[in-house]
Amino acid sequence: MKTSTGVASSLLLRLDSQSSTPLHEQLFEGIRARILSGALAPGLRLPSSRQLAAELDVARSTVLQALDALTAEGYLVARAGSCTRVAPELPLLTGERSREPGLTGAARAANIGRRQGASRGPRLAAATRALRRSPVGAPRLGAAPRAFRPGVPALDLFPTALWARTVSRVHARASTGLLDGGDPSGHAPLREAIATHVSVSRGVRCSSEQVFITAGTQQAFDEVLRLALNPGDPVWVEDPGYPGARRAVRSAGGRPVPVPVDGDGLDVGAGLAHAPRARVALVAPSHQYPLGVTLSLARRMALLQWAERTRSLIIEDDYDSEFRHRGRPLTALQGLDDAGCVVYVGTFSKSMFPGLRLGFLVVPPSLVDVVSAARASASAPASSLEQAALAVFLAEGHFARHLRRMRAAYRERGEALLEALHADCAGVLAPRPCDTGMQVCAFLPAPLSDLRVRDEAARQGVEVAALSDYFLGRRRESGLIFGFGGVRPDDMRAGTRILARAIEAARRRGPRSSHPRAKGPPPR
Amino acid sequence: MKTSTGVASSLLLRLDSQSSTPLHEQLFEGIRARILSGALAPGLRLPSSRQLAAELDVARSTVLQALDALTAEGYLVARAGSCTRVAPELPLLTGERSREPGLTGAARAANIGRRQGASRGPRLAAATRALRRSPVGAPRLGAAPRAFRPGVPALDLFPTALWARTVSRVHARASTGLLDGGDPSGHAPLREAIATHVSVSRGVRCSSEQVFITAGTQQAFDEVLRLALNPGDPVWVEDPGYPGARRAVRSAGGRPVPVPVDGDGLDVGAGLAHAPRARVALVAPSHQYPLGVTLSLARRMALLQWAERTRSLIIEDDYDSEFRHRGRPLTALQGLDDAGCVVYVGTFSKSMFPGLRLGFLVVPPSLVDVVSAARASASAPASSLEQAALAVFLAEGHFARHLRRMRAAYRERGEALLEALHADCAGVLAPRPCDTGMQVCAFLPAPLSDLRVRDEAARQGVEVAALSDYFLGRRRESGLIFGFGGVRPDDMRAGTRILARAIEAARRRGPRSSHPRAKGPPPR
Repeated sequence: MKTSTGVASSLLLRLDSQSSTPLHEQLFEGIRARILSGALAPGLRLPSSRQLAAELDVARSTVLQALDALTAEGYLVARAGSCTRVAPELPLLTGERSREPGLTGAARAANIGRRQGASRGPRLAAATRALRRSPVGAPRLGAAPRAFRPGVPALDLFPTALWARTVSRVHARASTGLLDGGDPSGHAPLREAIATHVSVSRGVRCSSEQVFITAGTQQAFDEVLRLALNPGDPVWVEDPGYPGARRAVRSAGGRPVPVPVDGDGLDVGAGLAHAPRARVALVAPSHQYPLGVTLSLARRMALLQWAERTRSLIIEDDYDSEFRHRGRPLTALQGLDDAGCVVYVGTFSKSMFPGLRLGFLVVPPSLVDVVSAARASASAPASSLEQAALAVFLAEGHFARHLRRMRAAYRERGEALLEALHADCAGVLAPRPCDTGMQVCAFLPAPLSDLRVRDEAARQGVEVAALSDYFLGRRRESGLIFGFGGVRPDDMRAGTRILARAIEAARRRGPRSSHPRAKGPPPR
Repeated sequence: MKTSTGVASSLLLRLDSQSSTPLHEQLFEGIRARILSGALAPGLRLPSSRQLAAELDVARSTVLQALDALTAEGYLVARAGSCTRVAPELPLLTGERSREPGLTGAARAANIGRRQGASRGPRLAAATRALRRSPVGAPRLGAAPRAFRPGVPALDLFPTALWARTVSRVHARASTGLLDGGDPSGHAPLREAIATHVSVSRGVRCSSEQVFITAGTQQAFDEVLRLALNPGDPVWVEDPGYPGARRAVRSAGGRPVPVPVDGDGLDVGAGLAHAPRARVALVAPSHQYPLGVTLSLARRMALLQWAERTRSLIIEDDYDSEFRHRGRPLTALQGLDDAGCVVYVGTFSKSMFPGLRLGFLVVPPSLVDVVSAARASASAPASSLEQAALAVFLAEGHFARHLRRMRAAYRERGEALLEALHADCAGVLAPRPCDTGMQVCAFLPAPLSDLRVRDEAARQGVEVAALSDYFLGRRRESGLIFGFGGVRPDDMRAGTRILARAIEAARRRGPRSSHPRAKGPPPR
């Protein structure tokens, strides 16, 4: 039939060709909802894409686009030359949704005076030691970024003039209310623009009241952890993982418990085995740092179930997953959370530029009043005028356009880096797949010390991070983290050639048995 | 009809002659409420005072008293030889409680309390309590500033266009190094400009390496205290004093020890007697908050000697002493420190505008490496582009010119406030001398509760802070803190007239024996 609606009888799906939502997105959402509701059972075989396309009266490419996205997110499994099935392991969320994450905080108010942590002597001594053993070739963090420093976006492509005009306009019209700093929860129009953006682009379900502006990711972690933790509370952190997350846990009085990360992301089972009573899990489900893996759907569900059951909190660190090089970005964990256990943390450090120092929290509805109250007597969380300028930038569509350009640029740069590594370091470095963001992890063969390669490379003017630095527990692998965001495609080879020489030099020196642990990797 | 009740049919007003509230106040409140609710539309012509008096069966002088007050507050406009009308635009000083989110917030808080209660522990419970006891009249912090909110600079005189041009220029030329965030210690040119400025204008002795940029005073306190304190360490704080200082002490794990402040500033002898082993003293020697006193030279010397002898740290909170109305600003305590015991904390929240969120530390030479190391793996402390813009603003002399203008403006506004207080509140309020900054403290005679006056004033649309809220130990005095920075000289009387009525109303209600402690004063 030739109407505005196609029906897939086999899946009971109905698409609306007159909707503003693209057909492939409708299909994606429709199948996803049926899997989550249990209407499409785990292991169920799907009709072929050809058959679906015919039933729905849409192009086969539309169907493939939707199926690819569902496969990438783990809802479907496809094997080459075989059919597509609903993923067999899908622990569906069932049971009551009414409970909230437990934020005991017990004795915290009184305890505020007994912060967990080293006494002053050790603390200052540690700081001083870190300073002394700072590696010779380590660059000043404030210096202009070099290849391949992780965490540097494609600043050469940032629309500086457009941003300057936006900022200038907002400054020129600044009201005294804005100069005075404004709402401690954040500039209202920015909160609204963010709520809209993350709903559309990240599948986050929220109203603008759930959005709180922060001065970057670190401050966001800090704020949530301080509210959630009692002194000494265990917190799951990814291992290897982002050192800033562990720092924030320690600084809030918590105890980071390293939970191994494998090809499916955080090993939730291992976390349950080692620290079932953790109060918080701090994870980067969409694009783990530094390995770049994605938390599988089965583990997402297991993680959410654990949080709901134990009334724990999940902090979702979604630092760069907007930049999925192809297809649509993976849906945020927050979008699957019916129990109000997930605090979503976003940042504009990658999508705009690190110097902006703006990020945000999306808290569950049950925590809105608590976070508001905690902020009530505080100052504005960040420059009010830059908040206002960013709100305009989002509202006028510049931000979405910039993201689209960046996605293409990172795809191009990622491919250029992999080619360059293949040309100069094949057989030594084994890069992981690179489909998101602006860095890639490449493993080194066993006897080669990644710390030594890192130092050799730094000496020759190339910056990489050593995977060893990201482990909290036992170092299981050796590898290098390359940031390619800030490196033009034509400049990749210059860097990888130097790196190849550095690897050669490190190899000649042999394994490094007792290299002092460096002060750690650069900020992400 | 000769009963206890008169009715103004034309305004649907009803007065109760047996109420303890004077008739003119009932009339005032009645008309005001109807204007705010919209029942009396903007521009509406009122019956003549003669007609109203007849309808309400009250003396015409009673009606005139009410109408005058309403006119003074801007609810009504009266033209000579003409009728009285409802103001076509609501005046700035209104704050209709029922429309403010504060009430909803309180309602929501009660709701949280029910839903979450004790299960989430003392910390969240405390946050919830704070929300609930938020005073009825307390304005939203994000709202446009009202007279006489403390801590609001003369934003009406800020050179917005000049600052917008500076910011725009810096943004348009931003290097990738700057976009990347730059040095975690702060933008080097800004550190240099600050070192020069505080040397010249505050007598601070330092090189630019000792200067570290912060995102405001609170973050500066936080950083130094975290480095300096062991859990439970006592810290001298001024009493009465700045609540933000105590919050920072607690949040860093320290124990605030209240040390009384008298006419010579912090009573160093009392501190020595009560807590000789304090690790840190947090003081505002040049212009104490909220009393406005100056630490005497003898006490400065005693404080420095104590710090040197016990190897303790003094944090000098120099938040607004640039604005000495006449003569040169007092020299900073840091300039007297030969032993390297003083950390100087400055802010641009007053000298530029609060929404900028930029401040700085000047640490002793012995701490430069420690603070650098602690920051090494952190991000930039604040927006790099705003740091760069501020550096240009200082270097080009705009900042110094702006300070000079502000000094004159604050002198003028301070004098206007004292005159207005003399005119409207003489004999009740005893203002302290006012020679620096943008607020003044005025004592209230003993039985009058400053909290009650504060709440009455808020109800009538004027904001003052209550001295009681600044005490950590026993409340020794009752008084009000007036911020005059944001109030134009011509607008002072409008505020003080309302205040006089609020004092009158508070006096009639008698002392307030068990008023719940409010959530505290607004940020400074």
